[in-house]
Amino acid sequence: MTRYEELLSTMALAMQPNAIRKLTGLLSSNKVISFAAGAPATETFPIEELAEAAARTIRDRGHYALQYGPTRGLSKLIEEIATYMRQRGVTDVKPSEILITTGSQQGIDLAARVILDPGDVALVELPSYVGGIIALHNTQAELVGVHQDERGIKTDELCEKIERARKAGRRVKCLYTIPNFQNPSGVTLTTERRRELITIADKYNLLIIEDDPYGELYFKEEAAHLMPLAALNPSRVIYLSSFSKVLAPGLRLAWLRAPEEIASKIETAKEGADLSSSLLDQAIVLEAIRCGLIKRRLPMIREFYALRCHAMLDALAEHAPEGSSWTKPLGGFFIFMQLDGKVNTTQLLPSAIETGVAYVPGQPFFIDSTGTNTLRLAFSKESPEKISEGIRRLCQVLSQKV
Amino acid sequence: MTRYEELLSTMALAMQPNAIRKLTGLLSSNKVISFAAGAPATETFPIEELAEAAARTIRDRGHYALQYGPTRGLSKLIEEIATYMRQRGVTDVKPSEILITTGSQQGIDLAARVILDPGDVALVELPSYVGGIIALHNTQAELVGVHQDERGIKTDELCEKIERARKAGRRVKCLYTIPNFQNPSGVTLTTERRRELITIADKYNLLIIEDDPYGELYFKEEAAHLMPLAALNPSRVIYLSSFSKVLAPGLRLAWLRAPEEIASKIETAKEGADLSSSLLDQAIVLEAIRCGLIKRRLPMIREFYALRCHAMLDALAEHAPEGSSWTKPLGGFFIFMQLDGKVNTTQLLPSAIETGVAYVPGQPFFIDSTGTNTLRLAFSKESPEKISEGIRRLCQVLSQKV
Repeated sequence: MTRYEELLSTMALAMQPNAIRKLTGLLSSNKVISFAAGAPATETFPIEELAEAAARTIRDRGHYALQYGPTRGLSKLIEEIATYMRQRGVTDVKPSEILITTGSQQGIDLAARVILDPGDVALVELPSYVGGIIALHNTQAELVGVHQDERGIKTDELCEKIERARKAGRRVKCLYTIPNFQNPSGVTLTTERRRELITIADKYNLLIIEDDPYGELYFKEEAAHLMPLAALNPSRVIYLSSFSKVLAPGLRLAWLRAPEEIASKIETAKEGADLSSSLLDQAIVLEAIRCGLIKRRLPMIREFYALRCHAMLDALAEHAPEGSSWTKPLGGFFIFMQLDGKVNTTQLLPSAIETGVAYVPGQPFFIDSTGTNTLRLAFSKESPEKISEGIRRLCQVLSQKV
Repeated sequence: MTRYEELLSTMALAMQPNAIRKLTGLLSSNKVISFAAGAPATETFPIEELAEAAARTIRDRGHYALQYGPTRGLSKLIEEIATYMRQRGVTDVKPSEILITTGSQQGIDLAARVILDPGDVALVELPSYVGGIIALHNTQAELVGVHQDERGIKTDELCEKIERARKAGRRVKCLYTIPNFQNPSGVTLTTERRRELITIADKYNLLIIEDDPYGELYFKEEAAHLMPLAALNPSRVIYLSSFSKVLAPGLRLAWLRAPEEIASKIETAKEGADLSSSLLDQAIVLEAIRCGLIKRRLPMIREFYALRCHAMLDALAEHAPEGSSWTKPLGGFFIFMQLDGKVNTTQLLPSAIETGVAYVPGQPFFIDSTGTNTLRLAFSKESPEKISEGIRRLCQVLSQKV
């Protein structure tokens, strides 16, 4: 999604088409500082290196890379991913457990289609990623929300909700969680809570869908390579990650690792869904891994987003209205802000945009329709200078309304 | 899918894993002439031009092409497709009716998910493309088969089957058809039958899913740009086509055109399924269209496959056993062969492979499990010389068994 389209869709949450048309000039003139798009900064894309890698891939391996590919994905790329996952602590991972998908969105969608029957219960965090919610919802499963605090999903509330659903005769099948630098909350699940989640999954016979697109984008050593849930008990976890944030989302490639039997069912589902993901993109990513392009650039990318995160935290500390609070992420793209209970961030969005700043209202991330006084701020796409100015503008609007 | 993987999956239809392992050496040593894979010939891929187009696209438009893209697809590519479809006779097509998909497989899957509820009836040709059958089947719709003759789907039988299903209280929702050079039959729907199909769709309030991946690959002027069903009555048709056969399948890009309201629902479904198809691949295809790469090479590609088709027809005329018959395609990749009623082509496949020739048994293409004495022969991937030799070997095996 382009910055412009993301802005438009954000506004569509709050406004009528006419109002959007009125603001079109303003938006396209680039006067709005946007904290809306949850996308990587284009400055982090290795344009020249990828241009060369793409041309090299097509010239040297075009006879293969331009042809139909296997549904599971390019086997050499799967081997590289297996090696990487072993380094992340999933020591026993096998290539037969891994599948390449068209973005993690497809991974969530296929996993949900394979795991869930209509009427089953799927647990999600409050708040959670809208795309994940949609994919789970599309199976006609019933979604049950569980709150997070600063240590991640609340495991006591999780147990209560499971017990309640089971007493009501429901089959509780899975939990969808984003343990690292969550979207939208920015919260990171603690090591202790990770162990508790696995215990709970064992106790209640749950699968955990562990969505980890941001894991490599940590800002502090304490958040460097936190143990994935899949490392703690691979038999309970479908792990998803992506090349979108560490390389470029335009290649639209991600992967999932699931217990072998589930991976095999997901492969069958993927065959019906699209036969395979782009083999050319897979071959380009393989080339990027082999020439060290991804690994070499990670420290720079972490530093890049850390700087932006700090700029936003500093500006919030300076300008935020009383009664508001916000998360302090250890990585990723997002800060989540909570305002005085009476503020409605959806209603406030048009005047924020007129003041020259955009965000995503928090409410769509809550499946229980709460969160009307919250908002998601992405620090990924604007420069530190614009972030400071944008937060100043935002807090001006918020202060008037609080 | 690689040639090797296609061969393996073909054999998996007929054999046990042990037998497959035994044949692995034989297959990888390239001694088998394969009429199995329904994939384009790698010789038709414009390797150097695509390498340059990819590098140029990333260098000049990487900031856009490497970012997240809109769910509907790159708007400039959609405009090019709209222009093309107008030339094909769909004169009133609007960009808002078009969506880019990850191969036509995704288009069929999303269309099926949007149109069909469990228990609805979807009509398919006997025989038909397995991927289409799977996507329709995955919605838990009931599939009803309608035979083809040399003029395409039999419209009288179609009406009978619709009437019968309706009398049984079923909702008949759609017909899935491949009107040009059908996979696997190689048959082309006549102009008269096309008009009849539209009349039937109107009468019974059906949607037609028109899958047209081969339309540009005609061998004779009589088959040049036959009027798509979508041109006869766009309100009744979801039209699908692809860049896989006219450029390269590794880019994994196709499109669909549907009535606006359905296109909008499919867009919503696609958002949950994968957010969007690879934007990089879309930008490369756009570049290929703009520099004339696709259009310029079409006459060469048509000639290329026509030569192979004729080689196969000539060899069949010379060697085919008595009592067998086969289709004479006007384009595409496939000839469909029917043998004496007692021959089982699935059982015959291992000895064919040992003789050095592979094909796909016809039975999986028939949803009613008939067609045990049929086989699909793809002439797309082997040279005319190998085709002659392969058909000689095949007919040797068939003659022994008939």
